Amino acid sequence: ISSATLGLRIQRAMSSVNIPPPECMLRPLEVPYRYLFGPGPSNVPPRILAAGARPIIGHLHTEMYEIMNDIKRGIQYAFQTNNHMTLAMSGSGHTAMECAVFNTVEPGESVLVSINGVWGERVAEIAERMGAKVHTMVKSPGGYFTTEEIEKALAKHKPVLFFLTHGESSAGLAHPVDNVGDLCTSVWVINAEHNCLFLVDSVASLGASPLLMDQQKIDILYTGSQKALNAPPGTAPISFNERACHKMFNRKIKPVSYLLDMTHLSNYWGNDSKSAREYHHTGPVSGFFALRESLAILAEKGLENSWRQHREVAEYLWKGIEDLGLKLFIKDKDLRLPSVTTIAIPDGYDWKELLAYMMKHHQVEMTGGLGPSIGMVIRVGLMGYNCSKFNADKALTALADALKHCPKRRG
Amino acid sequence: ISSATLGLRIQRAMSSVNIPPPECMLRPLEVPYRYLFGPGPSNVPPRILAAGARPIIGHLHTEMYEIMNDIKRGIQYAFQTNNHMTLAMSGSGHTAMECAVFNTVEPGESVLVSINGVWGERVAEIAERMGAKVHTMVKSPGGYFTTEEIEKALAKHKPVLFFLTHGESSAGLAHPVDNVGDLCTSVWVINAEHNCLFLVDSVASLGASPLLMDQQKIDILYTGSQKALNAPPGTAPISFNERACHKMFNRKIKPVSYLLDMTHLSNYWGNDSKSAREYHHTGPVSGFFALRESLAILAEKGLENSWRQHREVAEYLWKGIEDLGLKLFIKDKDLRLPSVTTIAIPDGYDWKELLAYMMKHHQVEMTGGLGPSIGMVIRVGLMGYNCSKFNADKALTALADALKHCPKRRG
Repeated sequence: ISSATLGLRIQRAMSSVNIPPPECMLRPLEVPYRYLFGPGPSNVPPRILAAGARPIIGHLHTEMYEIMNDIKRGIQYAFQTNNHMTLAMSGSGHTAMECAVFNTVEPGESVLVSINGVWGERVAEIAERMGAKVHTMVKSPGGYFTTEEIEKALAKHKPVLFFLTHGESSAGLAHPVDNVGDLCTSVWVINAEHNCLFLVDSVASLGASPLLMDQQKIDILYTGSQKALNAPPGTAPISFNERACHKMFNRKIKPVSYLLDMTHLSNYWGNDSKSAREYHHTGPVSGFFALRESLAILAEKGLENSWRQHREVAEYLWKGIEDLGLKLFIKDKDLRLPSVTTIAIPDGYDWKELLAYMMKHHQVEMTGGLGPSIGMVIRVGLMGYNCSKFNADKALTALADALKHCPKRRG
Repeated sequence: ISSATLGLRIQRAMSSVNIPPPECMLRPLEVPYRYLFGPGPSNVPPRILAAGARPIIGHLHTEMYEIMNDIKRGIQYAFQTNNHMTLAMSGSGHTAMECAVFNTVEPGESVLVSINGVWGERVAEIAERMGAKVHTMVKSPGGYFTTEEIEKALAKHKPVLFFLTHGESSAGLAHPVDNVGDLCTSVWVINAEHNCLFLVDSVASLGASPLLMDQQKIDILYTGSQKALNAPPGTAPISFNERACHKMFNRKIKPVSYLLDMTHLSNYWGNDSKSAREYHHTGPVSGFFALRESLAILAEKGLENSWRQHREVAEYLWKGIEDLGLKLFIKDKDLRLPSVTTIAIPDGYDWKELLAYMMKHHQVEMTGGLGPSIGMVIRVGLMGYNCSKFNADKALTALADALKHCPKRRG
């Protein structure tokens, strides 16, 4: 075909291209190797990278539905739930966060958010933006809420949703969740149409710190792909129980986001009563391949083994940190998150210098605090694939070296 | 460490695991090879799969910022724009769609949406949910809007945002965009604080059908990764010009979504005036690696060559389709989308049977219509990596075989 037969508009457009290909894009992609010992993303094992690199199929092919069904079962296992309404979000943990709030809360309804780090702050902001009446319970990072405090706040604010972070990665705290579900379902609600729903964030804790969705009466639970599951970031498992479904599928007005509307997402995941799945959005096919592989690894290993491994390696790391003369930020062992350990910033050191030193000389990533914990802690994450005594030693070596070589200014 | 030193809660939880690992997750991932000749996702070339399979780094590492900067420049080239506010969404095209509407429109403001297929329907729904006053111009699939019609509707509804689909993949139409930007900027607005913004969807057309964001005065443009760019689905390039930035950064109330708030996203992409990038959400690191590679391929090939290639292969495919005795759904060649071709469903055939036959016997995906075009068309997409006469022949062979073997019921 000669250019004479090309459409006139194409010919005109061709001669109008006036922004040249950028130099930087004519150079190959460069990615250094890093030991991702921060709070996530963590290193992705070759097996999961390979799964994510498989040639893709269509997001609406029957084989893709099978893969999604597998993912659903894998999440049910990881969450320890029989919930039918189990799926993965096409997005990171924040997408799951917004999805949970957007679908279960209507404008004007009361929401209670416990804040003891950055995640509660985020949920409060999300709920405020969509028009909820937001009440907060606030503790400084590392703090936790007693059953009595929660009971009192629930009674006072009568929320339709109560949010708690199980794995508070910004503070390194694993918050107890026993009994809270009971409080939400029965303690205070008398005449409400719906009891309060219990929403739990387990992005940083899933697979590392024990959590039993059904037994602990969690109504909505979500996590991320890039922590102990070791998949690349970009997908986020979430599950809703019957109570949550009843609330979200009996709304007066539609959720503000079409993309996150569970009416559509439940159909896309084959969780509704319709016989066919309809096109809603294009899911991250490669991301789902990788997520399936990460859930398969957890199923093969077993949840109990994964929990034990995280705890054992964490204990080993904690001891090593204390042996360096450093202090752990969370005093009570049983409240420490085994996946993300927080170290109190040692007196006299500039935490940014310590982190930069480890990155530069050891290719080891650790991070500072996040949100309210900035300037309070250094965070070390050893999750899933990264969770080994070998890696704990590597982290400790880097830390010891940084303490030795970074200038001490005060103290 | 013996189990005796493990926390009590862990020991209790371990003995409480009552949902066993699912059988299906103990079997390996199975993915068949498919010729993805539908409207997308299209096949991902090995080079992009390999980029997406590189060991990841942290989403906030300086090297990641460099990769994001490269992506930004690659998008500027692909869009032919100098817009500083250029980035990629952590999500598919629908995420970009919601982001554009959520940020540039406030509740109660007027939005005009042209609907000639499924994409306008989606934008109208998104804008309605967030509280905009939505006005629509509707044509049946394959129809397009004249300058006069657009001018009249703009004058009547005085919208803050006008939406047009450049690549209407549900109908196979490439909508002309010349002059529309001029109408939006100057024709009707006299006393408004902001002129109307021109929002264009180029998910199915970018890289295939000529589009020059700056020269064609498009205020906001977005696309998807999984069409002519051939990356896996899950990222979506988007760009806002100065006018769009002025509108979205001078809002009275915050956008309803925290996740899609451009105040935060612009910082994450290093596009605001702050010196440091702050944690907002965890971007899809592997997806960004893949997107960078796909933009690099386009930069190497050159936009003009990519447009020419798509047009030439499309012409070849169109001729082959007509030689089979089939009719193209869009009569005017210059209005046909070169990336996605729509075939009128041949008399007497059940389109679902034709598609199933090609999938079963040729591993070739074509699809039916979408939204209003369901039952009207069969869609064949040959995009980017898939765009070759070799693949056109493969598609035609599958089609001819299906026509020969599927039962003819009527006509």
